[in-house]
Amino acid sequence: MAASFADVTSLTTIAPRRYAARLDPEWTIAGKPNGGYLLAILGRAAVTAGEHPHVLAVSGHFLHAPVPAPADIEAEVLRAGRGASQVRVRLIQDDRGCVEALVTTADLRAAQPYWTGGLTVPDLPDPESCVRVPGRTPLGMPVPIMEQVSVRLDPAVTGFATGRPSGRGVMRGWLSLPGDETFDPLSLVYATDALPPATFEVEPTGWVPTIELTAYVRGLPEPGPVLVQQHAHVIAGQRVDETAYVWDSTGRLVAQGTQLAGIRLG
Amino acid sequence: MAASFADVTSLTTIAPRRYAARLDPEWTIAGKPNGGYLLAILGRAAVTAGEHPHVLAVSGHFLHAPVPAPADIEAEVLRAGRGASQVRVRLIQDDRGCVEALVTTADLRAAQPYWTGGLTVPDLPDPESCVRVPGRTPLGMPVPIMEQVSVRLDPAVTGFATGRPSGRGVMRGWLSLPGDETFDPLSLVYATDALPPATFEVEPTGWVPTIELTAYVRGLPEPGPVLVQQHAHVIAGQRVDETAYVWDSTGRLVAQGTQLAGIRLG
Repeated sequence: MAASFADVTSLTTIAPRRYAARLDPEWTIAGKPNGGYLLAILGRAAVTAGEHPHVLAVSGHFLHAPVPAPADIEAEVLRAGRGASQVRVRLIQDDRGCVEALVTTADLRAAQPYWTGGLTVPDLPDPESCVRVPGRTPLGMPVPIMEQVSVRLDPAVTGFATGRPSGRGVMRGWLSLPGDETFDPLSLVYATDALPPATFEVEPTGWVPTIELTAYVRGLPEPGPVLVQQHAHVIAGQRVDETAYVWDSTGRLVAQGTQLAGIRLG
Repeated sequence: MAASFADVTSLTTIAPRRYAARLDPEWTIAGKPNGGYLLAILGRAAVTAGEHPHVLAVSGHFLHAPVPAPADIEAEVLRAGRGASQVRVRLIQDDRGCVEALVTTADLRAAQPYWTGGLTVPDLPDPESCVRVPGRTPLGMPVPIMEQVSVRLDPAVTGFATGRPSGRGVMRGWLSLPGDETFDPLSLVYATDALPPATFEVEPTGWVPTIELTAYVRGLPEPGPVLVQQHAHVIAGQRVDETAYVWDSTGRLVAQGTQLAGIRLG
């Protein structure tokens, strides 16, 4: 039985604005905790320390990959405003800063869409007709996190699994949390980094470590799986950018992410 | 004669990792310094304090809008690695933090494109056939920065100027610096926030203040104007997201940005 997202991101307050986290060994890729998972933990520290209940915008810069073990988090409230707060958070392991992030928090309950444009909800088969990502990549790298969450890819983007990537740099699929837990702003932050790298559909590689990840949460999602689409645009200097859009089960765009990651190509 | 970008973003070192900046009164919108301009100044502080010459990724969270006047910047090097450094920077005015940013710096000289996909260079008329943005918006708001830089919009996205926005949330045009100065990584950071808001083509409003802005610089641009395209996707809870892509004069994608901003709609 997989532990819930709430469990694997839980914090213990050890002093004012100082928390103990436990980086779960199952939420890893080749032994390294997933970047979006780490940022969700930092987001939880920010909303615990700040004045507002939800992560609105979070930007994390990754200094050292932590190991799946206990970690400390320090938070500093930079500003507590009426409509939003800003909090700086830092994940520390063995006295070394691993991830530092800035978080703007707000109350998203009243955030109803006024206008949307330019993006259409991807038209992909029902989850049952999609292809579940297994706990090991085509190149043999273990990805235990895929046995915790369920990622079901559109069959149109799974060429990489049989050595025939499409060359397009697009990845899309359905994402469910353990026990089909309803998504919240923190698990939406994770969702922006949950799919296999879109670059697998260019050329499969090993670990694609996050350098920077920014996520915006635009509303509270309805229950059910979320639909995630990621696009890579440029591989240059052994780095790749990737955007992510996340729709809830009603087709509302509820989160957006962008990341820069390292890649062993070029 | 407009001051150069190098001038209006220059810093004086006043102590180790502490700098004095002057926020130029001309680089403003309705009296407020442009967000991308502020982030470029913080980027300069980061590369001055850090070990690497170029901004690779910068994420700024905006706490209080500063006024066009002197400001202090504090930098702290979080990590100085072989290929990249991370630096935290903070812009302070009257003892109040105005913008805090995390910056990853690197050396971009060797960053040659290996693969690009999913984005085509917008096909728009030559700068001479485009429409220069004047120093005042259709609603009468002064935008002095538009008399410093030159933004020439694709005539297809200028419906807002005559009260007929297209409804599409897309903005694109050519951007030149004062004196046609060649772009560098810092002015590319500014370029990701240089055009009028893409939301003007949804519904014109007043100031659209940046809440969070993240920019990635993907290569060193060739001389000449850059082509910028911005897309808004969702207006919800009086906030809008906007992505920006920046191509150099040879058609290479050299910078990417995403921002969340406040907007008085919805």
